[in-house]
Amino acid sequence: MSELKNDRMLRALAREPVDCTPVWMMRQAGRYLPEYRQTRGQAGDFMSLCRNAELACEVTLQPLARYPLDAAILFSDILTIPDAMGLGLYFEVGEGPKFRKTIRNANDVADLPVPKADTDLDYVMNAVRTIRSALGGSVPLIGFSGSPWTLATYMVEGGGSKDFRATKRLMMAEPEVMHGLLDKLADSVIDYLNAQIRAGAQIVQIFDTWGGVLTPHAYEAFSLAYMRKILAGLIKEHDGRRVPAIIFTKNGGQWLEVMADSGADALGLDWTTNIGRARSRVGDKVVLQGNMDPTTLYAPDDVIRAEVATILKDFGAGSGHVFNLGHGIPLDVDPAKAKVFIDAVHELSAQYHG
Amino acid sequence: MSELKNDRMLRALAREPVDCTPVWMMRQAGRYLPEYRQTRGQAGDFMSLCRNAELACEVTLQPLARYPLDAAILFSDILTIPDAMGLGLYFEVGEGPKFRKTIRNANDVADLPVPKADTDLDYVMNAVRTIRSALGGSVPLIGFSGSPWTLATYMVEGGGSKDFRATKRLMMAEPEVMHGLLDKLADSVIDYLNAQIRAGAQIVQIFDTWGGVLTPHAYEAFSLAYMRKILAGLIKEHDGRRVPAIIFTKNGGQWLEVMADSGADALGLDWTTNIGRARSRVGDKVVLQGNMDPTTLYAPDDVIRAEVATILKDFGAGSGHVFNLGHGIPLDVDPAKAKVFIDAVHELSAQYHG
Repeated sequence: MSELKNDRMLRALAREPVDCTPVWMMRQAGRYLPEYRQTRGQAGDFMSLCRNAELACEVTLQPLARYPLDAAILFSDILTIPDAMGLGLYFEVGEGPKFRKTIRNANDVADLPVPKADTDLDYVMNAVRTIRSALGGSVPLIGFSGSPWTLATYMVEGGGSKDFRATKRLMMAEPEVMHGLLDKLADSVIDYLNAQIRAGAQIVQIFDTWGGVLTPHAYEAFSLAYMRKILAGLIKEHDGRRVPAIIFTKNGGQWLEVMADSGADALGLDWTTNIGRARSRVGDKVVLQGNMDPTTLYAPDDVIRAEVATILKDFGAGSGHVFNLGHGIPLDVDPAKAKVFIDAVHELSAQYHG
Repeated sequence: MSELKNDRMLRALAREPVDCTPVWMMRQAGRYLPEYRQTRGQAGDFMSLCRNAELACEVTLQPLARYPLDAAILFSDILTIPDAMGLGLYFEVGEGPKFRKTIRNANDVADLPVPKADTDLDYVMNAVRTIRSALGGSVPLIGFSGSPWTLATYMVEGGGSKDFRATKRLMMAEPEVMHGLLDKLADSVIDYLNAQIRAGAQIVQIFDTWGGVLTPHAYEAFSLAYMRKILAGLIKEHDGRRVPAIIFTKNGGQWLEVMADSGADALGLDWTTNIGRARSRVGDKVVLQGNMDPTTLYAPDDVIRAEVATILKDFGAGSGHVFNLGHGIPLDVDPAKAKVFIDAVHELSAQYHG
């Protein structure tokens, strides 16, 4: 494997000194880019794009051609595992992801297979290898998975949800069934992320999009516990390098202390948390990733730059910060605004973090 | 006006001793009750039910006939003010509220009238008077309004939203227009809540359902600032009694300190915050209302009772707690479970709060 030309993100994740703060964006390969919309049009539907290694690689690299980003992230979906379990993922126009089958009881859980990532999800591993090769060591490649809790919400609801009534009903009425599902998912995610690492992912992130809908103790029992299990089961080093793991619980800002004790190298923060206060709460246990409100990219350039400066200043001096948006970049953002954001991070970080 | 037979809630809101902890539920008059569904069927659509004082009174009293609740809450909608501003509120079957007109620019804001509550919203005041009279002093009546920020999100989006892109775009790109809208809404809410108080509401609550989608500083500037303005403009005493004000920002658990300095008597907590830690953060500045996860009502009775005990224990000794669910009671809860919950609060509270 070639040497990394830009190792800022790996250095920041190891809390080593960096010349400037690394930055990437969730959904950086996405609909806000006209070139993405064009490739997507070619591919047909969203999952066809994910399943085609060459096209997945193409869209992964598109934002890197435009912006001096410090990492690439595998183009894929968080719901590949339940799909490989046989639930039948599909996307309806104008709506979110849906499953043809749902999980509602102990039998449904017992019948679920644990997919073998290298074979059942070989299209993902092909994409990882293709992207890693195309990157040629320019920046590291981030692999990812949904968290067990987050995957479970889609599997029980049969898609997205506003209030997660079916999921919570199962959790409240039959907690042992929910634990059975989550445990199977944790095993699947371990195998899936380790396969991504062996295929070339140099950093992994677990997206816990819906952990924030739980009480503090239910979060620990039903979401964090399974992320802990995954973190304990991940390959720690590959090709002579640490493979850092980031966990991101949206709306998890109240639980950073327990998240920092999970075994993760870094915590992703959404924009509802002040990053300086977050740092004082977690100390040196973990690196922090985040956390500008993505909709700041609707603002005039000077406001974007000022907001970047505020976050850098709030974090304070020292390494251990990976800049990011607090969630995915909105699909209707002007691509020029992303450049203003990324440049601001690179230009302003030395003065605040130095 | 008749004396209050059950003044537990007013006593708890004044941090005076109570024989047991008062409890009510958001959406306690709602679809989980078969008798509500019957009255609703008679009335036709949701707003027709709100506009009919006799039927609104009937559904307000329904949960009180079933359960020993310590307060009634006016049956109405949070979007009555924008409707009175001329936006044309309607409900589509299976979907949330919608507006025929949306607010997108400075002209739209300039054209908005500030409704006169006593005339433009007389149907609400009629409902308040009718309910108050029917209660006959059994329990206090809670009046309410949406917060300016929350009302603004519906007015800009034209209904509910997942990501509030239009609202955030307006806030980010033209903050002065958003402030103009919020200021007009704050004036409207002051007049609206004061009219409710004069009509008979003995407690008021401001529902800030969507304040939690903001950054900490945007929350203070775009949501809390306008709730402060409202709190400063409310009638403090009526009929010789303090009229306490409760503010409830869903997903606001990270900002309790600034909320406690807003002038509110009490803060509503959703279930993502540990109430004991919340209390240690706000001290004696405010009473706390909350905070059981509403979906706990899907659990077996012993689990509901144990969860009530945990929250009572976490709050600790002393008055200043109003028990509630952290959000509205789900529409598919068995009504018998609500009784288990309410009885548990009354039976168990003395041993933990005494």
